[in-house]
Amino acid sequence: MTDTNSVTSLMECVHEFADRRDWAQFHDPKNLAMALASEVGELNALLRWVRNEDADDAVSRSPLRERLLGEVGDVGILLLALCSRARIDLGQAVVEKLRANEDRYPAHLAMHNPERPHAK
Amino acid sequence: MTDTNSVTSLMECVHEFADRRDWAQFHDPKNLAMALASEVGELNALLRWVRNEDADDAVSRSPLRERLLGEVGDVGILLLALCSRARIDLGQAVVEKLRANEDRYPAHLAMHNPERPHAK
Amino acid sequence: MTDTNSVTSLMECVHEFADRRDWAQFHDPKNLAMALASEVGELNALLRWVRNEDADDAVSRSPLRERLLGEVGDVGILLLALCSRARIDLGQAVVEKLRANEDRYPAHLAMHNPERPHAK
Amino acid sequence: MTDTNSVTSLMECVHEFADRRDWAQFHDPKNLAMALASEVGELNALLRWVRNEDADDAVSRSPLRERLLGEVGDVGILLLALCSRARIDLGQAVVEKLRANEDRYPAHLAMHNPERPHAK
Repeated sequence: MTDTNSVTSLMECVHEFADRRDWAQFHDPKNLAMALASEVGELNALLRWVRNEDADDAVSRSPLRERLLGEVGDVGILLLALCSRARIDLGQAVVEKLRANEDRYPAHLAMHNPERPHAK
Repeated sequence: MTDTNSVTSLMECVHEFADRRDWAQFHDPKNLAMALASEVGELNALLRWVRNEDADDAVSRSPLRERLLGEVGDVGILLLALCSRARIDLGQAVVEKLRANEDRYPAHLAMHNPERPHAK
Repeated sequence: MTDTNSVTSLMECVHEFADRRDWAQFHDPKNLAMALASEVGELNALLRWVRNEDADDAVSRSPLRERLLGEVGDVGILLLALCSRARIDLGQAVVEKLRANEDRYPAHLAMHNPERPHAK
Repeated sequence: MTDTNSVTSLMECVHEFADRRDWAQFHDPKNLAMALASEVGELNALLRWVRNEDADDAVSRSPLRERLLGEVGDVGILLLALCSRARIDLGQAVVEKLRANEDRYPAHLAMHNPERPHAK
């Protein structure tokens, strides 16, 4: 049984899935980045005509919820495959970026405003 | 200290970062999907002019490696933020999609070929 | 002077720009598709936190309007570069897809609904 | 008959197609940017497993060529729809961006190198 809360276990599952199909030849970092763009495009397709104020409700209901779960799964798989290939510790990369963002978006300046103040 | 291997711990860090800035108002599923597209676009920018045969080497060296770590961090953050908002268990979504893909790409048919045979 | 309303003139300008820099070596269809994903990502970045009801107004004002013009220019350049490389008549491709969409989205069924009825 | 080489004629065709379906309500600039991301994702899907050195040949043959024509058509339609909605002169935007890029990538410095020298 896979521990679905463990990043390394998930990464191993993704790696093994591709390995059993001899897909390493296709899974270089460039191709995986491109595949990630195509899966994120599918995720965006689900929500392109949904208005902001309806989005939370929409993703909680059939059939959109099932489709979203599938696309989130695909995006997760590709991101883990890229990290596996490029030997990136995904959890570490997330935490380090959050730390960098603490400086870039200081809480008191970024309050109610997700853009960088200096980018205005 | 955050357990960087725990999906739920990472998701909490991402949620708290946004919460301290009162960003929930911006982080509906539609906006997060769009933000994910823009971060994946930045990740693709890093590798667009790198040839397939050079990609593994390129992502192992400065300064591309540091940039890739940053973009992988951003994509991970947005994916976790979307899962947090839409109450999606990311690890579960990954494992379920891998199971579905076992049927869609049977190992003996998909060997050396990442496209669905019936999509040819 | 370039005729900015002529698709072929625009395509020639784009081709010459790249040609003077000896960029044909980078501009194969795969790399251009990836570059297109990264430019569309930048375009999405501009609107990710803007709500639907504010979007028309937002793109009519500084500084968002100037940024949008720049990103639309980039997306247009990459699309024309791809068509130039792959010898695609962009105007013809647009008109043929519109014709195909006439069948796919019959006006009386697709009224008020941009999704395919059978995709529901 | 549509003049398929005229940007304004193509834009009118795209506008009328949407207008006959009462789609203006969905086609605000935000939604169109998102739809553009999803169509560019489909275009990227076609080439994600094709290697750089095979890409020119691949896009010249069936069935990839027909699929690429369809995706280029979709991307063109969405880009024209966005320009129509935001009152952007696409040809002008392309030419102005090329002019800006002349300064950003001087031919003698950018020769053989599509990245900005100062971005290195």
